[in-house]
Amino acid sequence: MKPCEVVNVRLGAGEGSVVLLDQTQLPNRVVYREVSALEDMVEAIQTLRVRGAPAIGVFAGYCLYVLARQLEGRGLEGPAFQRELERQGEVLAGARPTAVNLAWAVGRLTRRAAAMAGATAGDIVSALGEEARAIRREDEEMCLRIAEHGLSLVKAGDGILTHCNAGPLATSKYGTALGPILLGQERGVPLRVYADETRPLLQGARLTAWELQQAGVDVTLICDNMASMVLKNGWVQACFVGCDRVAANGDTANKIGTSGVAILARHYGVPFYVLGPTSTVDLSCPDGDHIPIEQRDGEELRSLWYREPMAPAGVRCYNPAFDVTDHSLITAIVTERGVCRPPFVQSLRAACGAEGGAKKQISP
Amino acid sequence: MKPCEVVNVRLGAGEGSVVLLDQTQLPNRVVYREVSALEDMVEAIQTLRVRGAPAIGVFAGYCLYVLARQLEGRGLEGPAFQRELERQGEVLAGARPTAVNLAWAVGRLTRRAAAMAGATAGDIVSALGEEARAIRREDEEMCLRIAEHGLSLVKAGDGILTHCNAGPLATSKYGTALGPILLGQERGVPLRVYADETRPLLQGARLTAWELQQAGVDVTLICDNMASMVLKNGWVQACFVGCDRVAANGDTANKIGTSGVAILARHYGVPFYVLGPTSTVDLSCPDGDHIPIEQRDGEELRSLWYREPMAPAGVRCYNPAFDVTDHSLITAIVTERGVCRPPFVQSLRAACGAEGGAKKQISP
Repeated sequence: MKPCEVVNVRLGAGEGSVVLLDQTQLPNRVVYREVSALEDMVEAIQTLRVRGAPAIGVFAGYCLYVLARQLEGRGLEGPAFQRELERQGEVLAGARPTAVNLAWAVGRLTRRAAAMAGATAGDIVSALGEEARAIRREDEEMCLRIAEHGLSLVKAGDGILTHCNAGPLATSKYGTALGPILLGQERGVPLRVYADETRPLLQGARLTAWELQQAGVDVTLICDNMASMVLKNGWVQACFVGCDRVAANGDTANKIGTSGVAILARHYGVPFYVLGPTSTVDLSCPDGDHIPIEQRDGEELRSLWYREPMAPAGVRCYNPAFDVTDHSLITAIVTERGVCRPPFVQSLRAACGAEGGAKKQISP
Repeated sequence: MKPCEVVNVRLGAGEGSVVLLDQTQLPNRVVYREVSALEDMVEAIQTLRVRGAPAIGVFAGYCLYVLARQLEGRGLEGPAFQRELERQGEVLAGARPTAVNLAWAVGRLTRRAAAMAGATAGDIVSALGEEARAIRREDEEMCLRIAEHGLSLVKAGDGILTHCNAGPLATSKYGTALGPILLGQERGVPLRVYADETRPLLQGARLTAWELQQAGVDVTLICDNMASMVLKNGWVQACFVGCDRVAANGDTANKIGTSGVAILARHYGVPFYVLGPTSTVDLSCPDGDHIPIEQRDGEELRSLWYREPMAPAGVRCYNPAFDVTDHSLITAIVTERGVCRPPFVQSLRAACGAEGGAKKQISP
């Protein structure tokens, strides 16, 4: 299988449904599900069958297009069509309130429909199909640019340490942190990858290791606490991680454990790269102290995944979902607009350019 | 329950058996097993029902004493008694070849018996009972001294980060790394503990969290990758870890992940303390590069503990059981003979004193 043949979300036959790769079944079973009813679309988002902020955005675009086709098929036109599309869009957007890309994609399609108020339902549906495909295409192009910038930082045979999952499953085609690796695999620049398993939800073990294995990449799974030894052994020439929000000074929020990887990399003299789109940079946020961190249920440490409880009943757990990596630990932040280096206050501002700021985006 | 009421190993009623707390059942069930047959004693060691180098030594001493009583009961005397005791001791010592304390304890009892060659079986059995109790008592005293030295390094209310398990289950009474915490609890110097779960075998979640909870200590379980955030939050005033072997220059081998904790502690300006007996210091080993590291089955990462596989079938894993913490990252090494500070080449030599060296010791 070629590197980027993992298709997480696509339109079904005749464009009457959306087909999704059910991420909750990985790595044990590759199960595609076809959804055409609104409630099944909402369920797929809520249960994390589709996860990763960009992937959720693409999925939502396809879903609203399919729903609009159904309204057209029922003979709705004019204000009735618009009202029902608006209502269904709200239900879809409410599936996961914190997934910014979800509301963003729904809003993009409903605004396009509203701007065509005088047109036939058929014309509006065609336009929504274009819009949904554009969301997908733009995300793919952005991932490709990030991947190319990232690939320029390493050479064939280099070892890469990565944490959590920011690959094709979460995005479109190449992913962000995994982009240079998958692009390198396509272009004859093979890299060796050490994938942190990423406790407690094991996205590294379940998703990253699976994606890279599918693509034929040389991947070794480690427990998070083994990264120090892998670095010490000299096996790693660069760390590539994704990001959930980047503050104006470069402080980066990403999956819990990322800051630890950065400190280890600094200690061992290995460059630490954050990869993500400028939409992840929040210039209105001065530094990491202003990024709220999600605290999750301690049951994820105590019993989730296990045959039986792995720790005493009732023991208290500290279970943040993300942490903040201080900018001083980051060698560069790679965006689709280039490689940002310190001082990030300037380089991020330059990368985000004339827009004066970018949407903030929290991926699951 | 008072802090140190966890009794991992003791003599049974009438001293005809050994009672052990089955560590493989923790934290879900507190099960005591009584063994009196040689094959059951061997099985308990091999299946890790009894684990921790000092605990295995104490268990072996009690076992050989109970076996000697059985020989006496069968009417064996003189050379026949000695031969059979020697044979059974060899079987016991072979249960886990790498557990140095096991062979050491068996040797201590069989040498004592051999030195009494002319005595009656009854007198020899009495002497072996004294010897077995002495092993236990000496280990308790050593743990208490380590605990007192460690407690002198912190104050009431301090937060402590610990990794893996070096508590009462693995030793006698206080443990090593957990010693200051449990002693502090007894003496009105309460400490707050953050326990790394310690992947892949989860000794921190299964054993440390259980022991501290039993003792009423304020303990919070974290995934290994959350230590960076706990340190950053200012919740930790000292790190306490055990050790499996300490080289002459202070390089310390301990459970995988320990070196990462040390690097994080250094980054955040938190002192990092190694606690262990001088028997763990191997002066014949110049530095950490000379300490061989056990590599374990990747299946521990892929499927052990889980309801179903957590990573793709066949994916390669890197799974060292321990790592080496460079001495430059260690603030002090606390032994029963005091707190050793850099340069360790001198302070460790001084602590190990006139013996010119100490036994090396690898605990499971």
